[in-house]
Amino acid sequence: MSDQAELTRTSAQSKARLRLWLRLLGVTRKIESELRDKLRREHDTTLPRFDVMAALNRHRDGLRMSELSGVLKVSNGNVTGIVDRLADEGLVERVPVPGDRRAMMARLTELGQTVFAGQAAAHEAWIDALFSEMGADEAQAFAARLKELAEALETRGDKP
Amino acid sequence: MSDQAELTRTSAQSKARLRLWLRLLGVTRKIESELRDKLRREHDTTLPRFDVMAALNRHRDGLRMSELSGVLKVSNGNVTGIVDRLADEGLVERVPVPGDRRAMMARLTELGQTVFAGQAAAHEAWIDALFSEMGADEAQAFAARLKELAEALETRGDKP
Repeated sequence: MSDQAELTRTSAQSKARLRLWLRLLGVTRKIESELRDKLRREHDTTLPRFDVMAALNRHRDGLRMSELSGVLKVSNGNVTGIVDRLADEGLVERVPVPGDRRAMMARLTELGQTVFAGQAAAHEAWIDALFSEMGADEAQAFAARLKELAEALETRGDKP
Repeated sequence: MSDQAELTRTSAQSKARLRLWLRLLGVTRKIESELRDKLRREHDTTLPRFDVMAALNRHRDGLRMSELSGVLKVSNGNVTGIVDRLADEGLVERVPVPGDRRAMMARLTELGQTVFAGQAAAHEAWIDALFSEMGADEAQAFAARLKELAEALETRGDKP
């Protein structure tokens, strides 16, 4: 290939990747904003609150604040405010960490588990409807490719 | 298909769509966070500032604050603060709207255009590297499918 042709090919590839990124970002933001609206209107909650409850639902024995921040990749301060609020509403309780009496973990209460189960079922149904034009096979193939991309990103992450 | 088989198929499809959504969200957040870091470290700027300058770069004649908020899908208040800051730095100027002497638009200055050109080139190169394991053809096909998905979402948007 001539230098010029190589340059054109490289630039077309770079533009295609940029367009893909802008599409990914656009679709994700659009869906996030729909989910935000629905959570607010139909469950009187927010996406950060839903994310905190989802993380605690996956870790039924509870999580320290630092673990919760790590799982959610947001700052400790934000998470603490959300957990305080959920505790006021009886959805989350603070329990001592086994073997470390000065440390506390957050854990879903029974009420919290019930409330979250309702929100999670609604969330899954919304996603199902939003992706309705994509069959199971395509969704699976798409997700698998995104997983490979995520893994490549992780590997790259070592060398900034 | 028996009712039970139909139920199983539907549920598998719904789970596949949910997994796809979680992957989309994960990959997008991961890349956004890398872009944030790089913009801060290498260009001393933020993603919202970059987004504002990108919008103004696409509309060289300038945009009213309300138009800018609309394009970016964020609140007017946030955009005003960002534009104020960019104006202080000489990257953006406020000019009267032709035919409406009480209204003002934000527009990139020449310095703003030059600075943004540098940031946009770096941004494209980062995206190119982040998606390096995806060729032009696959990126294009992926983007086209996401466009269809976005269009289906828009159509759905009419009936909440």
